[in-house]
Amino acid sequence: MDYQAILNIIEKELESFEDEGKVADYIPELAFVPSDKFGMHLHCIDGGDYSFGNSDEKFSIQSISKVFSLALAKKHGSKIWKRVDVEPSGDPFNSLTQLEKEKGIPRNPFINAGALVIADILVSCLDNPKKDLLDFVRLIAQDDDIHYDEKVASSEKKHGYRNIALVNYMKALGNINNDVDDILDFYFYQCSISMSCHQLAKAFMIFANEGRIMGTEEKAIKSNSTKRINAIMQTCGFYDEAGEFSFRVGLPGKSGVGGGIVAIHPHQYAVAVWSPLLNEKGNSEKGMRALEELTTLTGLSIF
Amino acid sequence: MDYQAILNIIEKELESFEDEGKVADYIPELAFVPSDKFGMHLHCIDGGDYSFGNSDEKFSIQSISKVFSLALAKKHGSKIWKRVDVEPSGDPFNSLTQLEKEKGIPRNPFINAGALVIADILVSCLDNPKKDLLDFVRLIAQDDDIHYDEKVASSEKKHGYRNIALVNYMKALGNINNDVDDILDFYFYQCSISMSCHQLAKAFMIFANEGRIMGTEEKAIKSNSTKRINAIMQTCGFYDEAGEFSFRVGLPGKSGVGGGIVAIHPHQYAVAVWSPLLNEKGNSEKGMRALEELTTLTGLSIF
Amino acid sequence: MDYQAILNIIEKELESFEDEGKVADYIPELAFVPSDKFGMHLHCIDGGDYSFGNSDEKFSIQSISKVFSLALAKKHGSKIWKRVDVEPSGDPFNSLTQLEKEKGIPRNPFINAGALVIADILVSCLDNPKKDLLDFVRLIAQDDDIHYDEKVASSEKKHGYRNIALVNYMKALGNINNDVDDILDFYFYQCSISMSCHQLAKAFMIFANEGRIMGTEEKAIKSNSTKRINAIMQTCGFYDEAGEFSFRVGLPGKSGVGGGIVAIHPHQYAVAVWSPLLNEKGNSEKGMRALEELTTLTGLSIF
Amino acid sequence: MDYQAILNIIEKELESFEDEGKVADYIPELAFVPSDKFGMHLHCIDGGDYSFGNSDEKFSIQSISKVFSLALAKKHGSKIWKRVDVEPSGDPFNSLTQLEKEKGIPRNPFINAGALVIADILVSCLDNPKKDLLDFVRLIAQDDDIHYDEKVASSEKKHGYRNIALVNYMKALGNINNDVDDILDFYFYQCSISMSCHQLAKAFMIFANEGRIMGTEEKAIKSNSTKRINAIMQTCGFYDEAGEFSFRVGLPGKSGVGGGIVAIHPHQYAVAVWSPLLNEKGNSEKGMRALEELTTLTGLSIF
Repeated sequence: MDYQAILNIIEKELESFEDEGKVADYIPELAFVPSDKFGMHLHCIDGGDYSFGNSDEKFSIQSISKVFSLALAKKHGSKIWKRVDVEPSGDPFNSLTQLEKEKGIPRNPFINAGALVIADILVSCLDNPKKDLLDFVRLIAQDDDIHYDEKVASSEKKHGYRNIALVNYMKALGNINNDVDDILDFYFYQCSISMSCHQLAKAFMIFANEGRIMGTEEKAIKSNSTKRINAIMQTCGFYDEAGEFSFRVGLPGKSGVGGGIVAIHPHQYAVAVWSPLLNEKGNSEKGMRALEELTTLTGLSIF
Repeated sequence: MDYQAILNIIEKELESFEDEGKVADYIPELAFVPSDKFGMHLHCIDGGDYSFGNSDEKFSIQSISKVFSLALAKKHGSKIWKRVDVEPSGDPFNSLTQLEKEKGIPRNPFINAGALVIADILVSCLDNPKKDLLDFVRLIAQDDDIHYDEKVASSEKKHGYRNIALVNYMKALGNINNDVDDILDFYFYQCSISMSCHQLAKAFMIFANEGRIMGTEEKAIKSNSTKRINAIMQTCGFYDEAGEFSFRVGLPGKSGVGGGIVAIHPHQYAVAVWSPLLNEKGNSEKGMRALEELTTLTGLSIF
Repeated sequence: MDYQAILNIIEKELESFEDEGKVADYIPELAFVPSDKFGMHLHCIDGGDYSFGNSDEKFSIQSISKVFSLALAKKHGSKIWKRVDVEPSGDPFNSLTQLEKEKGIPRNPFINAGALVIADILVSCLDNPKKDLLDFVRLIAQDDDIHYDEKVASSEKKHGYRNIALVNYMKALGNINNDVDDILDFYFYQCSISMSCHQLAKAFMIFANEGRIMGTEEKAIKSNSTKRINAIMQTCGFYDEAGEFSFRVGLPGKSGVGGGIVAIHPHQYAVAVWSPLLNEKGNSEKGMRALEELTTLTGLSIF
Repeated sequence: MDYQAILNIIEKELESFEDEGKVADYIPELAFVPSDKFGMHLHCIDGGDYSFGNSDEKFSIQSISKVFSLALAKKHGSKIWKRVDVEPSGDPFNSLTQLEKEKGIPRNPFINAGALVIADILVSCLDNPKKDLLDFVRLIAQDDDIHYDEKVASSEKKHGYRNIALVNYMKALGNINNDVDDILDFYFYQCSISMSCHQLAKAFMIFANEGRIMGTEEKAIKSNSTKRINAIMQTCGFYDEAGEFSFRVGLPGKSGVGGGIVAIHPHQYAVAVWSPLLNEKGNSEKGMRALEELTTLTGLSIF
C-alpha cells in the first residue's frame, strides 16, 4: 500500500474543504491556536512513516490523553470495571445526567466522568502520578520531547467548574477515594500534554501492535488489554458521535478538543490527524473527513 | 376554633403511629438526634399559642431556611426570577439532571440548586450575609435566641460534595456570580440554623399575615411577596412530594431534613411540627401526618 | 366586592394586550376558531353572575374536561391513587418520558396519560360512559344545553397518534384494563365537549362550594373530594406552567388547548375565561393575564 | 485454524455453565422453548462448516431480522440516514424517552423504533413487502426452507402494545409515512422468521464477504453497505450492552430475544449461536460467553 500517495491525495482533496467547525474556546489557550493548522501522520507496523502538513507541530492532546491514562491503569493491574462501565454514553462528554441515573458509575472511561475515576485510580496506585504518566507516554512514543503545558493546565484549572462538579458529584455518590483537589490537579495536567501527530501515531502503535512498543518490541501492556481498549475506542471514542465515526471511518480511535484524532488499524498502522476546527459534537471536522478518506482510499477498515 | 383541643387529639392519636421513617444520616450531627422527638406549635393570628411535646426544643431547620433566604432576597428587591424558575421539580431535591436540561436555571428556589442561586444573590447584596440573615430571622421571630450551629455547619461543609457539585455546575453554566466558596460557606451556615417549633411558627407568621411581623405589625416584606412565596411553598415546598402534601394537607409549607415542617394558613395561623424520622422523599413522616390531621380536624384548608 | 366593576376594568385593560400566543392547530377544528374571541364569566357563591365579551359562546373545553372525569370517578368511589399519582409533572402534557421512568403510573390525572387512566376507570365502572359523563356535566352546570362536538371528536381520533401511543404504552406496562379503542373513543369525546364560560363557571361551583350543586345544594361529590381535586388543580392544572399560574394567580384552576381556563376561589366564586391564543406551554396567554388581574384587583387569592 | 476443535472446546467448557438468564416470556410462543437448547455454527469464508449441538434446529430470530431488513433497504437504495441515526442508544431496546428528546428520529436501526422506520421504508418501496423480505433472506442463505412463523407473528401482534406505541408516537412526530397497521403487520412477521444457526451463519456471510453471496459470489449488496452495516452492528447490535459485547467479544454482531446471536469476522467467517436464556439486557447469556470464548481461543478479533 502506498500510504504516502494516499496521504497526498487526502491533503489535496481537503485543500478546498469548507470547514464549518469552530475552535474550542472554553479556555483561552485553545482559542489562540490558528484554525488553519492541518497535519497528518501515519506510522506503519513495518516502521514506515508517512505524513503531510503540520504533522510535526505540537498541539494540546486533551481527551486523547484518556487512552494513555487508561492504558497505564491497566498496566498497573488496577480493578477498573466495577467503577467505570464500557458502554457508549449517547450523551455529551461532560453530562451529569447519566451519572445521576447510574449512581456515580460513569458510562465509560472516555467521557470526563470516567476519566476522572481513572485519574482517582492512578492517584491511588502511582508514586508520582504526573511524572509517571509522562514517563509512560514518553516510553511508548520512544520520545522524551513530550511535556505538560503549564499554561494550559492552569487555565483548565481556572475554568474547570464542570469537572469540579463531576468529581464532587461522584465523591458524593461514593465512587471517588482520593482528595478531589489531587485528582483534579492530575487530570488537568494529563489533558495539557502537548504532542505532534508524529508522536501520537508512534505512541498509539502499542494498540495496533498487541501492546508492543515500536522499535524495542517491549510489551508496554498485555495484548488482552489492547483488544479491550480498542473495543472501547470503537464504541466510545467520540462522545455522542462514536457511531458516526465507526460508520464513516470504521476504525477504533479517540479525539480531543484540541482538534486531534488518533485512529488505529490493528496489525497495520496508527494514524494521527490534527485540525483545530471542531464540529458541534466536539470532534475535528476536517480530521474526521481525512480519516474517512483514508479508509475509503485504502479500501480497508476493520469491517 | 379550640386549637389546643385539636392539638391534644393529634398528639394522642399519633402516640401509636407506626413510623417507618429514618433519621437523616448524611451528616453525623443529624443522625445523633433522638428519633422519638415530637413537638408541634401553632401560632394564631390573634396571638394565641398552642402546642404539645418538644415544641420548645431547638433542632436544625435545614431547608426550612430556604424560605427565610428567599424572603430576605425579595426584601432587598433583588431580581430573582430570571435566574430561578417557580415550577415544581418533580425530581429529588438535589438532582442535577434538570439543571443540565435547563441550562443552569434551577426549577425553583426550594431545591438545593435554587437555594444556592439565592445564596449567590444574597452574597452579592448583603454587607454581612451571615449576620444579616440571622438578624432578619431574629427580627421576624421577635426572638434573639436564635443561632447558627457551628458543628452542623462545619459538618455540612465536610460532607457537602453534592452541593459543591451543584454550585460549580451552575458556575460552569453562567448562573453564579460570586466565588463558589463564599456561597457555600453562607449556604452551609444558613442550613445550620437551630430553632424550635415555637420560634418557627412565630417567624412564619409574616407569610400568614401579609408580611407583617407579629406584635410589632411592622412590614418585613411586601404582601405581594408573601402571596408569591406562599404559592411557591404550595407547589415546591416538599421536593418531589409537593403534590402529595398539597393533596393531603392543603396548606403552603416547607420541610427540612432535620424533621421540621412549617405550614401556614393565610390570615389564620402558622404551625410548626417536628419529628426527625423522614420518609423516603426526605420529609418528616409523622409531621406530615400531624398536619393532615390538623386540616382534617379543623375542616379548613386553603381549598 | 363589586365583581362586575372589576371585570370591566380587566376587559378594558386587556383591549390593548399584545398577545403573542398561537391558536392550537393540531386539529383543524381548533385552528378555525377566530383568535380574537375573548370572554369571562364569574359566578359568585351568593348566586351573582358577572361577565363580559364572548362569555356565552361555546368553545371546545378540551383538557378542562379532565376535572369533570376525575370528579365523576371519585363520585363512583373508584380507587384511583394506586394507578395515578398526584405530583406535578414538570414535563409537557403529552410526555412519554416520565411514564417510562415511573413504570406506567402517570404523574397526575391532568396530564394526558393520567386522564387516559381515568378514562379506563370510567369505562370499567359506567354503564354508558359517554352518556353518563355528559349527564354529570349537565347536572352540575344545571344546564342541558351541553353537547359533544362530533366533528372535533372525530378529528381528534384522526390525529390522535400521540394519545394512541400513550394508552398502548401504559397497556404494555400493565396500567390499562380495557380495550384501548374503547378508552380512546371515550377520551376523544370527553375532550370535545363544548361549553361557554358561563356554563363552565356554574359547573365548577361544586369545587368552590364543598361539592354542592349551585341552586339545588345537592351534593354532587364529597367535600373531601373537592379539597383533594382543588389541591391537584393547584399543583398540576397547567402542565409545566402550574407553578407560574400558582405564582401569578394564586388560585386552583385548569386550562384547555381550546383557550379556556377555569379557576375557583373556595367559598367565594368560580370563574371561567376564554381566549384562543396559547402561549408555548399550551395555556391561554390572555386568559392567564385576566385571572392575574382578577386576584390583583380583588386583593384576594388563596394565599 | 481448526475451528471444529475450538467449537468442541467451547461446547465442553460451557456444559457446566451456570446460566442465570431467563427465557423471554413476553409472548407465550417464546416462553415454551426448552431453555437447555444450545447450538453453534461457524461458516468459514473458505466454505467450511463447523458446528455443535442444536445448530440445525430452527428458532425465532426476532431482532436479528433487523439486519436483514436494513440490508434490503440499502439494496433498494433507500434514503435512510435522515430518518434514523447511527448512534448507540445507551437505553433499553424499546425505550421511548430518547425518541421524545430527539423528535422522532430513532438512535439507530437496531432498536425497535429504528427497525419500525426501516419497516416503513420497505413498505413504501417493495411490491410485496413480506414476500420480498423472505425471498431476500432465502437468497442470501441459499436455502428456501426459511419461513415466517404465523403463530409467533400473531402472538406478537396480540401483545405488541409497546411497538404500537412506538410507531404511533413517531407518526405523531412526523417520521412515519404509511398506515401504522401495515407497518406493524410487516414488522411482526419480520420478527417471526425461524432459522437455524446453520442458516443464519450462511446468510450473514454477505456481511463477512463484502456483500457477496456464498457459493454464487453474486453481490447481494454493495461492499460499501456491508462496511456501514457492520459498523452499526458493532456499536448498536446489543441494545444497551453493545459496549460490553464489543469489549468481551470484539466482533460486529446482532442478538435476538429468541436467544440467537450472530457475529461476523470480516473476511474470515460468520458464526451463529443459540441458547434461549437471556440476561437482564435481553441478550443470550451463554451465547455471549460462547462467542467470547471463540475470539479468546482463536486469538483473533477485529481489534
